[in-house]
Amino acid sequence: MIKIVLFGTGNVATHLFEAFNRSTQAQVIQVYNHRADSLLSFQSKVATTTSLSNLKKADLYLLAIKDTKIESTVEKLHKNQTLIAHTSGSLPLLSRAYRNGVFYPLQTFSRDKEITFSKVPICIEASTEEDQELLLQVGKAISKKIYRFSSEQRKYLHLAAVFASNFTNELYRIAEKICLKKGLPFEILYPLILETAQKIEHHSPRAVQTGPAIRGDQKTIDLQLQEINSPELQEIYTLITTLIQNDHESEL
Amino acid sequence: MIKIVLFGTGNVATHLFEAFNRSTQAQVIQVYNHRADSLLSFQSKVATTTSLSNLKKADLYLLAIKDTKIESTVEKLHKNQTLIAHTSGSLPLLSRAYRNGVFYPLQTFSRDKEITFSKVPICIEASTEEDQELLLQVGKAISKKIYRFSSEQRKYLHLAAVFASNFTNELYRIAEKICLKKGLPFEILYPLILETAQKIEHHSPRAVQTGPAIRGDQKTIDLQLQEINSPELQEIYTLITTLIQNDHESEL
Repeated sequence: MIKIVLFGTGNVATHLFEAFNRSTQAQVIQVYNHRADSLLSFQSKVATTTSLSNLKKADLYLLAIKDTKIESTVEKLHKNQTLIAHTSGSLPLLSRAYRNGVFYPLQTFSRDKEITFSKVPICIEASTEEDQELLLQVGKAISKKIYRFSSEQRKYLHLAAVFASNFTNELYRIAEKICLKKGLPFEILYPLILETAQKIEHHSPRAVQTGPAIRGDQKTIDLQLQEINSPELQEIYTLITTLIQNDHESEL
Repeated sequence: MIKIVLFGTGNVATHLFEAFNRSTQAQVIQVYNHRADSLLSFQSKVATTTSLSNLKKADLYLLAIKDTKIESTVEKLHKNQTLIAHTSGSLPLLSRAYRNGVFYPLQTFSRDKEITFSKVPICIEASTEEDQELLLQVGKAISKKIYRFSSEQRKYLHLAAVFASNFTNELYRIAEKICLKKGLPFEILYPLILETAQKIEHHSPRAVQTGPAIRGDQKTIDLQLQEINSPELQEIYTLITTLIQNDHESEL
């Protein structure tokens, strides 16, 4: 059984903790957080600590903490024989001076929303083959999809994820806002949103674009721009409409 | 059995045709298109015509044609006792001078991608209660979700749909482009894209936003802006990031 000390108590840490709890190959033996109150919900399930000098002996220190806190936390750790890995998509390998790696689960984690972890792609990287192998085993303990990517590749994967998930979610929010403002039930858009997402599993998004922009329906575009009051939303509408049209034009 | 003459042979028309084909309450008895070649794939299944003077007697003329062609097509029709309805999200009721209505299926239809029509919301509108009732029956023949909305409401629903579907799909395309450029498999993003879409069925998009923008992680935001070469994409990145941050700030 691979032993893990998990750093952090946020969304990523909580979902990882639950995934490892269901695993028979890897186990979280301790959760660290600098704030005691954040550890409360973990205390009945696992050993916890607020002190970096009380860390248990483990095979892996897994840092599921804010990007901005990773460097300062690692500085305070004893660089002993334990592999130290962070879960950030955008940060590179920390150093080649000691055993360290990356264990990046490519998913959007929210409190109160369960995740089927076996389908979550996990991107691993380490300085040595031995540590790659250890992270591979840790990954396999909770997921069926493990990928080896370099820091450079992972950086762009994270950028793509921001567009595909965070920015997409913001478009959902804009749609929700439009609905609420006009007294329309937002749930009427669920089948559309789900179909748009499911479509790309078998079709390139380029091939399945629909709507006024791709049809070149300038009359509807002009009307919709008039319906939008906010200058920022008008700007986004115009920008994305132009992108849809230019991209497809350049393909002709 | 309600008898329908279907106008159009595009994505919406084709999916509607197939849905009515499976129905026992409504039937497409003829498909009209001004171009003969577009009718080829329908000829083995149903009567077709390229002439507006050869239209069969029906309960409903259903115009699943381009927004820009609707008015000119309707002008050429005899305004007899047949209800005339279009499938456009953005166009209002055509006139109150004759029997007409709207039958707008709120979904994104692509060739070669099957649709479970029973879950597609259909928004209906008509000048009279009698015609509302007829469109309700036509809707019920293929879907379980029929909504009555005014032209004004439907206009904004369509606007919301453009953000939630067409613009979202364009973000998927940008993500795909980033992946292709860096030799990364786009399919690694599928679980993330699907989870982002599924999440909002039970949570408001506002409540489940994740990523650098909502975390206020300016370091990652600056790095990602450097990774993007295209000025248009930088502009979109900055605009949506600012929207995410401002929207949530103004809620505090």
